[in-house]
Amino acid sequence: MELAPLGPVAFLDTAGIDDQSNLGEQRTAKTLEALASSDIVLVVAPPGQWGLFEQQIADKARAQNTPVIPVVTKIDLQPADPDWLNRIEAECGTKALAVSCAQAASDHAVREQFLNRLASALLAVCPESLLSPPPLLGDLISRAEKTATAPPVAVLVVPVDSGAPKGRLILPQVQAIRDALDSGIAACVVRECEYEGFLSSLSRAPDLVVCDSQVARFVAERTPSESALTTFSILFSRAKGDIVSMAAGAARIQSLKPENRVLVAEACTHHAMKDDIGTVKIPRWLRKAAGPGVRIDHARGRDYPDTLAEYALVIHCGSCTLTRREMLVRIQKAKEAGVPITNYGIAISALQGVAERMLEPFPEALSAWRTALAADKAQISERTISMEAP
Amino acid sequence: MELAPLGPVAFLDTAGIDDQSNLGEQRTAKTLEALASSDIVLVVAPPGQWGLFEQQIADKARAQNTPVIPVVTKIDLQPADPDWLNRIEAECGTKALAVSCAQAASDHAVREQFLNRLASALLAVCPESLLSPPPLLGDLISRAEKTATAPPVAVLVVPVDSGAPKGRLILPQVQAIRDALDSGIAACVVRECEYEGFLSSLSRAPDLVVCDSQVARFVAERTPSESALTTFSILFSRAKGDIVSMAAGAARIQSLKPENRVLVAEACTHHAMKDDIGTVKIPRWLRKAAGPGVRIDHARGRDYPDTLAEYALVIHCGSCTLTRREMLVRIQKAKEAGVPITNYGIAISALQGVAERMLEPFPEALSAWRTALAADKAQISERTISMEAP
Repeated sequence: MELAPLGPVAFLDTAGIDDQSNLGEQRTAKTLEALASSDIVLVVAPPGQWGLFEQQIADKARAQNTPVIPVVTKIDLQPADPDWLNRIEAECGTKALAVSCAQAASDHAVREQFLNRLASALLAVCPESLLSPPPLLGDLISRAEKTATAPPVAVLVVPVDSGAPKGRLILPQVQAIRDALDSGIAACVVRECEYEGFLSSLSRAPDLVVCDSQVARFVAERTPSESALTTFSILFSRAKGDIVSMAAGAARIQSLKPENRVLVAEACTHHAMKDDIGTVKIPRWLRKAAGPGVRIDHARGRDYPDTLAEYALVIHCGSCTLTRREMLVRIQKAKEAGVPITNYGIAISALQGVAERMLEPFPEALSAWRTALAADKAQISERTISMEAP
Repeated sequence: MELAPLGPVAFLDTAGIDDQSNLGEQRTAKTLEALASSDIVLVVAPPGQWGLFEQQIADKARAQNTPVIPVVTKIDLQPADPDWLNRIEAECGTKALAVSCAQAASDHAVREQFLNRLASALLAVCPESLLSPPPLLGDLISRAEKTATAPPVAVLVVPVDSGAPKGRLILPQVQAIRDALDSGIAACVVRECEYEGFLSSLSRAPDLVVCDSQVARFVAERTPSESALTTFSILFSRAKGDIVSMAAGAARIQSLKPENRVLVAEACTHHAMKDDIGTVKIPRWLRKAAGPGVRIDHARGRDYPDTLAEYALVIHCGSCTLTRREMLVRIQKAKEAGVPITNYGIAISALQGVAERMLEPFPEALSAWRTALAADKAQISERTISMEAP
């Protein structure tokens, strides 16, 4: 649901955690899972009905620093007692919202009024990063170019393959276009086969080119050196996670050995197509680069392994279905296990030999990539020396 | 859910129609509503459990020419009897799908296999228009331009106002970009404030310009005469409904009288912003054009009135949440009542005085608009003469 100015808000309507049946246990597990990944928790209860279970949810949420808002329902049947209201507000640390769903369902004005109060309440407690996320690409074009008569031009190169959703674009592409518009940049979207021809329709080189990782080398070979160039994946590894760690992690690809194990982790359980990136393309390229013996495991959806130490590298998807918070938790897990982590896009740029060019717009990430590359090389030559020594 | 090659498929999980309770009646009504708007109906039943209720659903669906597929579940508990299976397949007119949800939930391969069989079954019965919808804009650029070295260029002018979803674009804009890509056209997306500046960055006039209706006049005044020009709304009134009727309907705006009633109908119940098109902008412009006395009614969501005869005009939203079938039913209702119907976009172009320019790429619609305009004028002058006569 679009709730301005927050943007799209997903409401997970979970079961209460007071169900003692067998199915109830599964429901409770789902509820606690949702609790762990939520930015805000609404605890819904009719007047007077705030028991141990409601309290447990509120406590768990507050223990993980997630704001809790009590929502008092069915107020058309019975008003809420002020003392009771004070108590639950004190326990949650926020003001309660009161609503009669029966009235809201039949009266459009009541519904709108409640939605406005709900939006204000969510706004008051939500994390700052939801309100002002860093720009995706707007800051990559200098201010001087933005004040010229003609707007800056970004060319977005988007292959239309069997993995593209029918009749639409994938969300990261849409978000990049919107971010360009918000920054006063013209966003020109072309397929890779029209890219070169389109460049000749422009009166000057584009200020920025962003391409799908899969055509990284193709586009790099055709892009004027004065244009900044990067990939959608790299833009999103900055917006969604930690671009510096991801760039450093990609360096490990260059030193993978045939006996290594690699984890390819995907956040969602989409219906895989025949040319699927995670299960087909990346494994093929990895085996070509590091030898056919490399063992590749796959993790899908929520089942990200607890123990990562056995892996030489984690390659994660772009995490478009994860929140920034969830992705940072996954990066942290890899760091704790001492395992480099990167994402599909940076990995593919590395495998295509264009990681340097693609990371150029992000000096800190480029430097992390170079440092990690040098460290891995030093380690390899050290190992080679000690193996030769005896 | 994205089910290639069908595209996005919405599964409405409805209640059975065998619930006799009070709440059950409401559920049954919802189910029948969903049945009426569905392109395909899946009737789910465990082996042996095909009763009067399942039969009723299948009959209702077939009566409205909607394909029905029986889905036999829980086959891990009990296999389906071949005679029983033959009977329900004969009643539905299609082969049944069998599945064990318990197995599919725990085994990824079983799930994928079932999804593939489901996709094939849906594909086999779905209406042709879902598989090959008419192009949105690809056919508006001539073949000659498509075979030149540089790809054709379409400029999409997209205002970013308070009604735009945060960090994204609205679906019609995304669909237009994708349709351009599929036709080998470069899609350049700009805000209206960058439009003129961007034109100077192109080495020639764009082949096609598509703008948001709200900036129709602004863009028309700045577009070279050799470029084809239209609005997103007009593109979608062709793709989603009946552009010829909608263009003819818009002509009525020119002859609206202060005592007329106008119905503004919206397909969804979105949270209205302060500058909402349907409830704020269109009423303001209509009153400016036809006088402050014009009475404007609003219909929201599913509650499209059964009787439209009292209205002089119906102005419908772009119907992005309706299927083509649902929109055609609404157009048909207006026609039966003898009431002109148009949509937000064409109405706004008419109110801004640029309907002719915007309809130019669609000769049949342009001609319907001109004919309706002439007929309305003739009627007015006839009425004027007969009023003056006595």
